[in-house]
Amino acid sequence: MSILIKNAWIVTQNEKREILQGNIYIEESKIVEIGDVNEEAEYVLNASGKIVMPGLINTHTHVGMTDMRGMADDVNLEEFLMKMWKEEAKRGREEIYKGAKLGIKEMLRTGTTAFVDMYSDEDAIAKAAKELGIRAFLGWAVVDEDITTQEGNPLNNAENFIKEFRNEELITPLIAPHAVYTCNEETLLKAKEIAEKYDTLITMHISETRKEVYEHRKRTGMRPVEWLEKIEFLNSKLIAAHLVWLTLHEIKILAKNGVKASHNPTSNMKLGNGGSMPLPEMLDNGILVTLGTDSTVSNNNLDMFEAMKFAALLHKNERWDASITNAQEILDFATINAAKALELNAGSIEEGRLADLVILNPAPNGLPLRKNTIVSNIVYSLTGLNVEHTIVNGKIVI
Amino acid sequence: MSILIKNAWIVTQNEKREILQGNIYIEESKIVEIGDVNEEAEYVLNASGKIVMPGLINTHTHVGMTDMRGMADDVNLEEFLMKMWKEEAKRGREEIYKGAKLGIKEMLRTGTTAFVDMYSDEDAIAKAAKELGIRAFLGWAVVDEDITTQEGNPLNNAENFIKEFRNEELITPLIAPHAVYTCNEETLLKAKEIAEKYDTLITMHISETRKEVYEHRKRTGMRPVEWLEKIEFLNSKLIAAHLVWLTLHEIKILAKNGVKASHNPTSNMKLGNGGSMPLPEMLDNGILVTLGTDSTVSNNNLDMFEAMKFAALLHKNERWDASITNAQEILDFATINAAKALELNAGSIEEGRLADLVILNPAPNGLPLRKNTIVSNIVYSLTGLNVEHTIVNGKIVI
Repeated sequence: MSILIKNAWIVTQNEKREILQGNIYIEESKIVEIGDVNEEAEYVLNASGKIVMPGLINTHTHVGMTDMRGMADDVNLEEFLMKMWKEEAKRGREEIYKGAKLGIKEMLRTGTTAFVDMYSDEDAIAKAAKELGIRAFLGWAVVDEDITTQEGNPLNNAENFIKEFRNEELITPLIAPHAVYTCNEETLLKAKEIAEKYDTLITMHISETRKEVYEHRKRTGMRPVEWLEKIEFLNSKLIAAHLVWLTLHEIKILAKNGVKASHNPTSNMKLGNGGSMPLPEMLDNGILVTLGTDSTVSNNNLDMFEAMKFAALLHKNERWDASITNAQEILDFATINAAKALELNAGSIEEGRLADLVILNPAPNGLPLRKNTIVSNIVYSLTGLNVEHTIVNGKIVI
Repeated sequence: MSILIKNAWIVTQNEKREILQGNIYIEESKIVEIGDVNEEAEYVLNASGKIVMPGLINTHTHVGMTDMRGMADDVNLEEFLMKMWKEEAKRGREEIYKGAKLGIKEMLRTGTTAFVDMYSDEDAIAKAAKELGIRAFLGWAVVDEDITTQEGNPLNNAENFIKEFRNEELITPLIAPHAVYTCNEETLLKAKEIAEKYDTLITMHISETRKEVYEHRKRTGMRPVEWLEKIEFLNSKLIAAHLVWLTLHEIKILAKNGVKASHNPTSNMKLGNGGSMPLPEMLDNGILVTLGTDSTVSNNNLDMFEAMKFAALLHKNERWDASITNAQEILDFATINAAKALELNAGSIEEGRLADLVILNPAPNGLPLRKNTIVSNIVYSLTGLNVEHTIVNGKIVI
């Protein structure tokens, strides 16, 4: 397939963060040329008055739960988990597949071209992802064998899933130990071993709530990140979700080990986790920060535009300082930073990159359209429903 | 004009907060019948699988600035005001009219059917509002004569504006003294006198930043609300915007005087005002709370769906307690509470009420559609761009 996008405002997210005006030519899965190009193409999209930007990358969600949207609002995390686990016990592969379809449709419609998932039955989610054409990083959830509801051993399930899906074009399997309160040392180290064996990424919830930190310290004498370093679990393949309750010492440990962060501001706020991830200190220490929505049960949507605004405003509010975050750095979290964390040749619009991008109609909530306020409009004004077209791997999926 | 909306999920916002399924029949400006009704109508809207809810009411904005969107991001309020005032000095009636048109189009497109504005040149904004068919409560901004940039005396301008527009169907003029740092006692009391003479509402910024409170106290020995009570400015006609930095004593003063609150969470967070309005204490003391977006320079959109989500999540985060706010009370702020504050026969879908309502398409980000999660979906999942039709005063405007 070849696509020519004409006369667009292009938010490149390249090294210089240039904003260009011109055309983009896509062939097969790649961006081939940007600028004055005038190739013939099978599909020509007129983007005059529109914005083209890299597709957003959601680094933390549980898309199989999408159809449970709104089922546990306005309660704190512990009660939330009780409600969820009770509901989830009633669900099987078919429900998870349906939930995933609903969620992936929402993601594509709202400009997300790639996502990281954590759940069981990721093969059902892979099926939904392949049918709908999204790029999916699917982490099979692992917990200790004595508490799992999965059939069989979670580590074996994860390994089998990785073996089955590791050669797919749009699916990248990974392993997802759930948290320090559901995985013991042996489980965590076995999960890491599997990741090393197949050279996959790892994703895990870390330090989401005070309770988690408090109880882990009571049990081990150490805070979660300190303990994870001690057992030699941390490495640069790990994408840690939440990281709300961290000390500066833990931030330095994460930085030293090259751990990537998935910030989930909307979910953290909605669950009343309190505190808020120490973003400025994490950036100061060189941690690569990306952005996630979490599931529709704790968010309650998968709109990464909204997640960007919540990320920016949460920290301005928390620090009583409007200058503590800025639109450009937040956009980086959701695009180029996430691509780096996922070792993915995307996240920016440059020749040779994968053609994962979206076309936005800025009317009416992102007008006027001016070069020097486009990034501001993307982060602070627009929503996922401003997306008119989503292109993944060179294919128009919306 | 008559309109029949068929087969809708109806979020009534009536006394019992009922959610019904059925038809709505509208004749002229009013809702005439709800339920199994099958009247003939000029316009028939099939709302099967859709949600009908009261139009949202934005109780604080400056719509004439909409075309300045994105011009002062990521700076604190004082620097923000400097930037704004410099830009505004270059602007005249024509720019304000154009800004208002852009903003009103955005409001109607995103489900807002009525708004409260504070600005100069409200006659230009009234012109835009009439052309586009929104319900507008327009407050002519008043500051001390020695600092105004208005031609002529602001109090006279305000009075003339009220006289000219007080018999319009969709326009309700009011008076808008700007703040305690721009209006002295004499200006405030004269503004109140004008409001009493023409029986209009008053709106004003109160206690938005620490600096405002600190400097007012240094000047008068009293905090703003204490001082406003002392000079006998407070009454039940006043809609006070922001109210971020309040003591419990001031909350009790506001409650005693029947002052209404316009909460602007997104703007407060974006400007890093810090603190956050003491919502739970205000509700405990019986203050009627409504919701505003503020302008597109400090928000940066006019989407009341987003404002609802920010309102809910800000306080959950601030109090480390997910149960401190709930979706239903937040929806009340943006509908029935605002209608009460504005003495407007709207804000709920009931026979005899004004036909100010919106039809939402919940796909894809508000699915599945279930009676017991509809209110949650409205507050936590949907955005203004889910709105398919907006009806104001019985006319389909979107």
